[in-house]
Amino acid sequence: MFVLFHSNVMYPNFVTHLKKYISLNNDEVALLLSSVKPLIIDKKDFLVKEGQICRANYFVEQGLLRMFFVNHKGNEQITQFALENWWIADYMSFTMQNGSHFNIQAVEASTVIAIEYHKQDYLMEQLPQLERYFRLMMQRAYAAAQMRVKYFHAASKEDNYRQFVSLFPEFVRRVPQYMLASYLGLTPEYVSELRKRNS
Amino acid sequence: MFVLFHSNVMYPNFVTHLKKYISLNNDEVALLLSSVKPLIIDKKDFLVKEGQICRANYFVEQGLLRMFFVNHKGNEQITQFALENWWIADYMSFTMQNGSHFNIQAVEASTVIAIEYHKQDYLMEQLPQLERYFRLMMQRAYAAAQMRVKYFHAASKEDNYRQFVSLFPEFVRRVPQYMLASYLGLTPEYVSELRKRNS
Repeated sequence: MFVLFHSNVMYPNFVTHLKKYISLNNDEVALLLSSVKPLIIDKKDFLVKEGQICRANYFVEQGLLRMFFVNHKGNEQITQFALENWWIADYMSFTMQNGSHFNIQAVEASTVIAIEYHKQDYLMEQLPQLERYFRLMMQRAYAAAQMRVKYFHAASKEDNYRQFVSLFPEFVRRVPQYMLASYLGLTPEYVSELRKRNS
Repeated sequence: MFVLFHSNVMYPNFVTHLKKYISLNNDEVALLLSSVKPLIIDKKDFLVKEGQICRANYFVEQGLLRMFFVNHKGNEQITQFALENWWIADYMSFTMQNGSHFNIQAVEASTVIAIEYHKQDYLMEQLPQLERYFRLMMQRAYAAAQMRVKYFHAASKEDNYRQFVSLFPEFVRRVPQYMLASYLGLTPEYVSELRKRNS
């Protein structure tokens, strides 16, 4: 894992995404960028391991991450993916600064922007419009989580798969088949069969 | 359903809860209270029905609500409860102002404070500290949703039941047994058996 030197040019997605929701002038962008930590991580690198404190909220500038835990059968159960322009963290661990219940790992080599816990309050004070930005991000994430619980219960596994493919084609293209199976609670063989049947 | 006249005295939980997270002077409280809609609802009254637009974000001043949908087998699947001091809404429907995927119904006679969609922006402009309050509320709700997905997958159904009972004894005391079963994805008979076994 490498910490990058700061430069606006290096993370255009981050700045563009913020400006979609709030206004930031050049000085404010500079202040923000001087307080975040950009990280370059390799495929399979961990940002958080189960039991460790989740010390930052992570924005995916480039790449793909997954969140998972190891279930009572010893299998990796994926609960979330994060592509470009999504934030990811174990928010219980991040908020309370206690041990994480999840792992966060790179599925592809990735660039992420970390806002560390101890910098967050300073940033919110300096740039109060960030409260609005994160309110909107959290509301969006929570809305997606509510829908996910519904999908999870609602339909047959095949319908769940079809719905996921139609809503998130980018994930299906980039995520290995066995990870998609873990996320959807299916066996890799069943996903492979569904893929053939629906292609 | 009745709309109450405005009076600070009528919703102490709401004002106290806000002041736990942000500062509001008396004028600001008065402005806020003049822009929200307090509702008294009977047991079994609906705030939102599946397919209708979720027009407000609801704070439970007093009482207990549930959120559910009707699954492909025609059964009510509960996805959430909300007790005093919790907010509840279908946030996808609320944000997009399109048809809701859920029903929100009173389990007990309740008093709720509604912040309507068309009032929200006005309130956030007038009282920018509300952005922080709702950022914290959404982050808390999302953190709980992340944990819920883990519980859902993680353990045996009996362990899930035990965990829920130890984390949320108040729900278990107030929620009818068949609703608890629906929420936990168990049969009412199984919950009854677990209750005996663990009492």
